[in-house]
Amino acid sequence: MSGGVGSRFWPMSRSSKPKQFLDILGTGRTLLQMTIDRFSKFIPIENIIVVTAAQYKDLTLEQIPNLPEENILLEPYKRNTAPCIAYASYKLFKHNPNATVVVSPADHLIVGDEAFSTTIQNALSYAKEHDHIFTIAVKPTFPNTNYGYIQADTKRSIQIGKNQLYGVTTFTEKPDYEMAQLFIDTGEFYWNSGMFIWNVKTIIRELEQHLPEVSTLFSSMLEHYFTDREQEHINRIYADSTTVSIDYGLMEKTTCAWTFIADFNWCDIGTWSSLYDSFEKDNRGNAIKCSEGIFKDMKNCIVHQANNEKLVFIKGLEEYMVVDTNDVLMICPRTDAAVKEVLSNLALEEKREYL
Amino acid sequence: MSGGVGSRFWPMSRSSKPKQFLDILGTGRTLLQMTIDRFSKFIPIENIIVVTAAQYKDLTLEQIPNLPEENILLEPYKRNTAPCIAYASYKLFKHNPNATVVVSPADHLIVGDEAFSTTIQNALSYAKEHDHIFTIAVKPTFPNTNYGYIQADTKRSIQIGKNQLYGVTTFTEKPDYEMAQLFIDTGEFYWNSGMFIWNVKTIIRELEQHLPEVSTLFSSMLEHYFTDREQEHINRIYADSTTVSIDYGLMEKTTCAWTFIADFNWCDIGTWSSLYDSFEKDNRGNAIKCSEGIFKDMKNCIVHQANNEKLVFIKGLEEYMVVDTNDVLMICPRTDAAVKEVLSNLALEEKREYL
Repeated sequence: MSGGVGSRFWPMSRSSKPKQFLDILGTGRTLLQMTIDRFSKFIPIENIIVVTAAQYKDLTLEQIPNLPEENILLEPYKRNTAPCIAYASYKLFKHNPNATVVVSPADHLIVGDEAFSTTIQNALSYAKEHDHIFTIAVKPTFPNTNYGYIQADTKRSIQIGKNQLYGVTTFTEKPDYEMAQLFIDTGEFYWNSGMFIWNVKTIIRELEQHLPEVSTLFSSMLEHYFTDREQEHINRIYADSTTVSIDYGLMEKTTCAWTFIADFNWCDIGTWSSLYDSFEKDNRGNAIKCSEGIFKDMKNCIVHQANNEKLVFIKGLEEYMVVDTNDVLMICPRTDAAVKEVLSNLALEEKREYL
Repeated sequence: MSGGVGSRFWPMSRSSKPKQFLDILGTGRTLLQMTIDRFSKFIPIENIIVVTAAQYKDLTLEQIPNLPEENILLEPYKRNTAPCIAYASYKLFKHNPNATVVVSPADHLIVGDEAFSTTIQNALSYAKEHDHIFTIAVKPTFPNTNYGYIQADTKRSIQIGKNQLYGVTTFTEKPDYEMAQLFIDTGEFYWNSGMFIWNVKTIIRELEQHLPEVSTLFSSMLEHYFTDREQEHINRIYADSTTVSIDYGLMEKTTCAWTFIADFNWCDIGTWSSLYDSFEKDNRGNAIKCSEGIFKDMKNCIVHQANNEKLVFIKGLEEYMVVDTNDVLMICPRTDAAVKEVLSNLALEEKREYL
């Protein structure tokens, strides 16, 4: 899933080049490339499908040159994750009704490729034979209010290879801080990594049951998948589709969800705060990415330089973020609210070139 | 006088291109060009001499293309203003011992060209016939500690055309804040604009009296001025010259100083604080020069963008300065101390490319 615009990560992430297409960590690989790299170790590139917005087709091909062009599914409108998953699932079902699938966002950070590889392969093998919805749960380290939480049913517990598998009691999207703290205190709650594993028959059954409108639209496409008119019909039905996330539309309703406990480090680089959490920090709590810097009396700040090699001199900021890109210089408190504020200003003033 | 490096105005002012060569106000003309423009209205360009450092010869010719190349005097070393003035004065004396001269820094801001023109011409006419040292004094508007102060002797007062002329009691360089406040309270003190008017015989007499070493060096050059070997000899004697300002070496000692009261607005853009003082500010006290900006809860700040047209978003800064140039991004409290701090760091780390 590579279609988001990542506006909470402005000004690095822009509608013309959202964060999955950026080398945010300065490793030389973009988040999309890192995601493909991770899966390519055990899934042939021919079996990898990238669902993205129509405008990002060229960017995708440029960044993943060995990806077959027909493996890029293009969404004409933003409809959130449920239609995206339905599109890929029904199309895949036509190709191979016995397929097993792992669904993953393109913009997450994973540390621990070995553990990742083992866990996902383990889950894929198990999902081939079991008609459940499988998720990947991550042990929380603090009450993050930007994540979804999975409550594990410790009474339904199975050891699968090296991985612990639990039945799922509840899914909760982005709780408030007190709730998140409560979740963590119980020891039963995990972060929802946003990755799913299932066999294609199971997800289609679940879509029919919980999202019948979406399922009807995409099953009506069965005769058109892999034909010259697929895109034309997709463009038509996307216009009619409701906008709904897989978490809200399906995961919170299903009764057959199970979760693998991940033994790798995972992070959704959805916001500056999450990037701050995942970045290495100096002994004053500063997460700094810049070619050359002099910092005095600076504490708990993010400094992020993109596409330039300026000398950065900062004195006296606390809990701030400084982001310097080609066309935007942002200096504001290290909160998502500040980014939202400037975005709504830009939208109001119709300065689309900066969005 | 166009040879300074303007380090207090870093990172706009750099040793490779000091502030007199910059279009600091965004008017399309550099400070040097504006200075020449002002004087050109009543002094033919052939009679204008620019004294600068050897390395700035090409910059000077580029910016003032109609200036005769032989009117650029090149200093091989930094020796402050007294040797600079002595060089030009003795050379001019050889050319025309009856010349009258106005000496001016190249990096000052003047608002009110008409009044400037009238005052300087008035002073030049008077100086032709009177063997005094004339300065231009500006009515102070606040206790600026970066300026020199002139105490006027109101008992020795003459009306010359539209200008008031006073005898000078004392010169005081850069007083502390309490002293500056006291000066202003008396009503007798003025800012020293750093411009001087005299006939060339008078300044030579004064140099001989108060700075005999400097005077001996440059009078020994009389046979070499306007010859092929002038530069070679200048390079030699500059090495031997003491480093001393005309204010300290002569003005504080002379007994024949008089001062014209200026009726134009003057400002020495020596520092960021002085630029802040001279810039227009919004109703929250922000002096902003940038192509596009969104500013929230920002107070009494300087925002200065150079050579780029980025969108600048700033939230929550007070009494800060943000300067964004080609190769430096500076975010620090709006004090000269902060700039000094980074400069000494850069010098210590031998990062000369940023100086």
